[in-house]
Amino acid sequence: MRFTSRTSLDGVTESHFTVDDVPGVLWTPTAAGPRPLILIGHGGGQHKTAPGVVTRARRFVTGGGFAVAAIDAPHHGDRPKGAEFGRIAGELRAGMAAGGDPAALVAAMHEHLAGQAVADWRAVLTAVQLLDRVGTGPVGYWGMSMGCGLGVPLVAAEPRVRAAVLGLLGATGLASAAARITVPVRFLVQWDDERVPREQGLALFDALGSAEKSLHANPGGHGDLPSIETDSSLRFFARHLSQDGVVVPGS
Amino acid sequence: MRFTSRTSLDGVTESHFTVDDVPGVLWTPTAAGPRPLILIGHGGGQHKTAPGVVTRARRFVTGGGFAVAAIDAPHHGDRPKGAEFGRIAGELRAGMAAGGDPAALVAAMHEHLAGQAVADWRAVLTAVQLLDRVGTGPVGYWGMSMGCGLGVPLVAAEPRVRAAVLGLLGATGLASAAARITVPVRFLVQWDDERVPREQGLALFDALGSAEKSLHANPGGHGDLPSIETDSSLRFFARHLSQDGVVVPGS
Repeated sequence: MRFTSRTSLDGVTESHFTVDDVPGVLWTPTAAGPRPLILIGHGGGQHKTAPGVVTRARRFVTGGGFAVAAIDAPHHGDRPKGAEFGRIAGELRAGMAAGGDPAALVAAMHEHLAGQAVADWRAVLTAVQLLDRVGTGPVGYWGMSMGCGLGVPLVAAEPRVRAAVLGLLGATGLASAAARITVPVRFLVQWDDERVPREQGLALFDALGSAEKSLHANPGGHGDLPSIETDSSLRFFARHLSQDGVVVPGS
Repeated sequence: MRFTSRTSLDGVTESHFTVDDVPGVLWTPTAAGPRPLILIGHGGGQHKTAPGVVTRARRFVTGGGFAVAAIDAPHHGDRPKGAEFGRIAGELRAGMAAGGDPAALVAAMHEHLAGQAVADWRAVLTAVQLLDRVGTGPVGYWGMSMGCGLGVPLVAAEPRVRAAVLGLLGATGLASAAARITVPVRFLVQWDDERVPREQGLALFDALGSAEKSLHANPGGHGDLPSIETDSSLRFFARHLSQDGVVVPGS
């Protein structure tokens, strides 16, 4: 693990790093000491410091005392783009432009990335947990859309992840991995999602194997997730990842 | 308005009253002064001091500083039962015992009660708002199942109600009233509800006219609403009914 920059602003330290070839960012409170960690998986075409990632990361740090890590997904952000990825991405763009249901094309894209993405997250998690300011406490995962498509196989495979907030994606290609998830899950649906038909999102929630799972649906399209769900995610993680010495927000 | 008893326990004053022929209960903090009011509508076959009503009422008082009122629905609790009600209730019981979808029978029951129930709530609301310990501040409504079936027409008709938590009921007979609701609504669905088919509950959420509405779904049957939703309802009301001088819980 190699750190490339470190800045602090308003009580949050932001450190950029690489683990092998994977570029990532770690946000922590400026105070020393271990704390629970939340991994944030970005959406398709985005990257580790997309505005939605940074806003949630800072909120989780300042509101809950968590450490937060994000990485560039394979073929995203600062990582090189492969030819096969370009071909699949082109098919997906063409399919979406044609106005049909792109569920199968989205699933093909996520399947192309998932194996590498899960390996990347596991290596980064191991490296980050060696840091004194993180430690080996409970880990959560937050990811919507592609962040859900790569998160479902990660959470299904990785026992260090104890709770997850997922959503904005349908069940195509994910039902069997979702059924292997047993940790508490909060699942978010946008009621008027123009990319994910409502029934497909509900079907992915339904497929989750977790005994403790809850669905939150709000009006609006794929990009209209209300900010109140960020605070609700924070309380969800505070309930499920809290441990001695962690600042937990009210209720 | 006539008070028949008053007791205080753990910072909550519980006053029983009647308004005309309608028996009700008011819970308030023991401290003086006006505060927002939450009306709780009980479920079918229940009454104003059913355990679920009392538990939520006390939580809303102690956790949010609200006043809370509940009344016996027509033909419920301490109120006389009419012959026509008995006939409709018998048909509903027989229909449920037969194992079919009782949505039409449930809707017929609620339709039989709704006109009187809405008039009762409006008279009680007027009386309760004259009390110094309540006042004319914002009003919320909380009701599941029959409490939703009678709450939808109330919230649609009564401009003093500014926010509502509804759920555990389908759209049969309620879609047009639901479409007239414009205040913020939290809607609760039990994912494995043995009385309300999932699609019917989702359809009632869909029918709500409110620009600001959110659906929370949890695993389990009709009677398994998790207690975490009580705290979530409390935060919902605190956001939408808060005013100067009210104790609002964290976030």
